[in-house]
Amino acid sequence: MTGLELLRAIASGDAPGAPIAELMGMEPIEAEEGRVVFAAVPGPEHYNPIGSVHGGFAATLLDSAMGCAVHSTLAEGVGYTTLEMKVNFTRPISTDTGRVLCEARLLHRGRRVATAEGSLIAEESGKLLAHGSTTCLIFALGRASG
Amino acid sequence: MTGLELLRAIASGDAPGAPIAELMGMEPIEAEEGRVVFAAVPGPEHYNPIGSVHGGFAATLLDSAMGCAVHSTLAEGVGYTTLEMKVNFTRPISTDTGRVLCEARLLHRGRRVATAEGSLIAEESGKLLAHGSTTCLIFALGRASG
Amino acid sequence: MTGLELLRAIASGDAPGAPIAELMGMEPIEAEEGRVVFAAVPGPEHYNPIGSVHGGFAATLLDSAMGCAVHSTLAEGVGYTTLEMKVNFTRPISTDTGRVLCEARLLHRGRRVATAEGSLIAEESGKLLAHGSTTCLIFALGRASG
Amino acid sequence: MTGLELLRAIASGDAPGAPIAELMGMEPIEAEEGRVVFAAVPGPEHYNPIGSVHGGFAATLLDSAMGCAVHSTLAEGVGYTTLEMKVNFTRPISTDTGRVLCEARLLHRGRRVATAEGSLIAEESGKLLAHGSTTCLIFALGRASG
Repeated sequence: MTGLELLRAIASGDAPGAPIAELMGMEPIEAEEGRVVFAAVPGPEHYNPIGSVHGGFAATLLDSAMGCAVHSTLAEGVGYTTLEMKVNFTRPISTDTGRVLCEARLLHRGRRVATAEGSLIAEESGKLLAHGSTTCLIFALGRASG
Repeated sequence: MTGLELLRAIASGDAPGAPIAELMGMEPIEAEEGRVVFAAVPGPEHYNPIGSVHGGFAATLLDSAMGCAVHSTLAEGVGYTTLEMKVNFTRPISTDTGRVLCEARLLHRGRRVATAEGSLIAEESGKLLAHGSTTCLIFALGRASG
Repeated sequence: MTGLELLRAIASGDAPGAPIAELMGMEPIEAEEGRVVFAAVPGPEHYNPIGSVHGGFAATLLDSAMGCAVHSTLAEGVGYTTLEMKVNFTRPISTDTGRVLCEARLLHRGRRVATAEGSLIAEESGKLLAHGSTTCLIFALGRASG
Repeated sequence: MTGLELLRAIASGDAPGAPIAELMGMEPIEAEEGRVVFAAVPGPEHYNPIGSVHGGFAATLLDSAMGCAVHSTLAEGVGYTTLEMKVNFTRPISTDTGRVLCEARLLHRGRRVATAEGSLIAEESGKLLAHGSTTCLIFALGRASG
């Protein structure tokens, strides 16, 4: 399967979601070449000790969506690994925020390296909650990464 | 309570841990002014669909430890919010990795801004799994952030 | 003067450019609220010892354009300082690249914090050479930053 | 030559410095495997229009020192390219700051990827002016990068 075929199979329920996706209550809802959207609902289980949703929630969503935006451009037999990610947290997230949408988009696709950016938006208010960027290494599967 | 008193109360079990900490299986195990250590055990529930622990696991641990390294320097009545975080993923994490330690250290503490760095290490092998840095805004509690 | 008035005065030549701008051969060519474009021509004086234009060239352009995108939203009497910046270098730059355009755009504007993103593009080929993001602190002038 | 041999030749004056180094008034003063120190003196030519040394000065120094910390670990026939860099600006720099030292250290060295961190310190006061991290791609020379 290509990366895009795998993402679409997960989005349609034909392939199982990832364990971390269940933990974070997130799922891919759109996938095309170079663009992916995840949705999630922040819950009380995602809170930090200082009264708002932990930054790990936004970071996990952005890492997923941005990695998948890269993955969606890969042919069969080609894999990727995320080298780094940066996240800006622009507004607090709470259980009042409601469903959030995380859209990611490929920015650069070289032979060995790709970059992507993503934003996390509150579906109801349209407000920007977080944004980020990532660098991924691309390699032929069967070879070790790193 | 100061930030350090709160962290020590959580580490000793005298204050409840955060919901996200239970989700990620993480807990603070050391806290002094400007330096905090979290421990966690990566499990099958943290996996991504491509066969390793999701980057959100390392990102959540680093965000927690680095934020707490800043928090540990705050007097009573002073709060913080994380503005941004960068994470480098240097080695894959799996259920074979065993317990990981995330140590964070304050780098800069101004009146309104603080920065910290952190590293995630496999306890048994001592190998560096991820590292990161963060920027936090510091403010008098009772005022809104952002 | 507001931030935007100052930027437009520099762009039109009514106010002097910055010394660093001369060093890097860069100048603002467009400025509106929340969006700024700089242009520059990479020369032999910008080379690193390994045969291409040094990353500091793209970093300086992005830092300028992204900071100015924030500056362009500030009223008179309000200042800013850049807390951090991340740059992705996606293609090598050489003296063959020709003029480059660095466009930056405000992403978030809070009361005390703003974020922006930017991209560096080769004017002739339209290729993406670098991209980045930044976090700025906003404050009333007359108060110290940091 | 290995990367370390080249760095030492530049530091001793036996090989020419880079053009960008002259522009920024910087030079390598120490180089060992995985650790490099650059020195520079910020001057009026490095100023931005808002009255302090431009962030590009610290960014260029950190990019140089961190890249060279990676370079210092490379055998003959092996090259590198910088994929991304993040810089935190922790204190303003001016012509009063005097000479600054930028020390960088390798954090991770894989077969295809390396990471490094760096800090910029005012020599006289010992104060931390900026810090950063970087991700580099490593490849056999003769093959194209990116």
